[in-house]
Amino acid sequence: MPYITLPEGLPGIRGAMAFRPETAKPMNELVEVLMCGPHTLTPGERELIATYVSSLNDCYYCQTIHGAIAAAHLNGDEDLVKRVKSDFKHAAISDKLKTLLVIAAKVQRGGKNVTGEDIADARGAGATDVEIHDTVLIAAAFCMFNRYVDGLGTTQPRDEAFYRERGKLVAREGYIAVSKTYLPAKAGAR
Amino acid sequence: MPYITLPEGLPGIRGAMAFRPETAKPMNELVEVLMCGPHTLTPGERELIATYVSSLNDCYYCQTIHGAIAAAHLNGDEDLVKRVKSDFKHAAISDKLKTLLVIAAKVQRGGKNVTGEDIADARGAGATDVEIHDTVLIAAAFCMFNRYVDGLGTTQPRDEAFYRERGKLVAREGYIAVSKTYLPAKAGAR
Repeated sequence: MPYITLPEGLPGIRGAMAFRPETAKPMNELVEVLMCGPHTLTPGERELIATYVSSLNDCYYCQTIHGAIAAAHLNGDEDLVKRVKSDFKHAAISDKLKTLLVIAAKVQRGGKNVTGEDIADARGAGATDVEIHDTVLIAAAFCMFNRYVDGLGTTQPRDEAFYRERGKLVAREGYIAVSKTYLPAKAGAR
Repeated sequence: MPYITLPEGLPGIRGAMAFRPETAKPMNELVEVLMCGPHTLTPGERELIATYVSSLNDCYYCQTIHGAIAAAHLNGDEDLVKRVKSDFKHAAISDKLKTLLVIAAKVQRGGKNVTGEDIADARGAGATDVEIHDTVLIAAAFCMFNRYVDGLGTTQPRDEAFYRERGKLVAREGYIAVSKTYLPAKAGAR
């Protein structure tokens, strides 16, 4: 049971967003720019960063839905998503993404943990300023989303098929588009 | 020195926002709704929550600028801001705000730390669903902003007068309005 009265039938962050469309609008816009906008990191790579941070924060809803979105972007490769969560240093991802995941994990524990050496390693593997910036911000943003989802005690179904289907939909249509199905037109549409 | 090349002369989050106006826009909109929008918590109370969470995250820039904004809203009472950061249970704030600060501190450590008892205490002190929701989201959002500011190694001047003047300006004009002075018109204005 959520701690406040949220609209029924909307699990995880969706119930919270429907409760407060005024804050849902900028949160959806932020995640859309970060995860779906034009970028030198693929949507799959960015979703892996979000999934990994959400797993470090132990947020079941976020790590499962973003893991499903990542898998949908990565030809359905759910094993790769699991491997990134459990042991990314030996996962079949680029060396650059590995250095960015190191930075993301530091940010998850607190921004001050990032060191010049972490940044030098990422640059050495070819990371650009925008890639480093967005890795820090994706990690920071999911520290917000994870706390929002768990701090309100939202409903988080244990049903892999539910997340798999939703993941395909979000990967295909993006965050703002799918939010229009549960947010009032005035706040959800733009 | 920031870890990436940020525009000069813009301390803290402003340099990072000027570097990436596409993400600055929704972040400014989120903080404007949460901190300046119509509400049953005063702007000063909401800024105290943000300041307290930023101090728990040990983010110098955020706790100092939001502490200054809070003080500007609270008739310049800087001692009250300091007391809330160091020992809010004995500060001259309402019992309701004390229960909300308990929730905010739990969210700062991770959303799962919030308990039904924390929520019952807040309700017992008169907190509404929106107040509880926004407390959770303010705490979560500042876990993002703090990590963003520190994770990029932004410039954070040690100059109380700088923050005091800036705090008065933001308290008077709001976040979106002041961001227009350093964001490109297309991204900063709306």
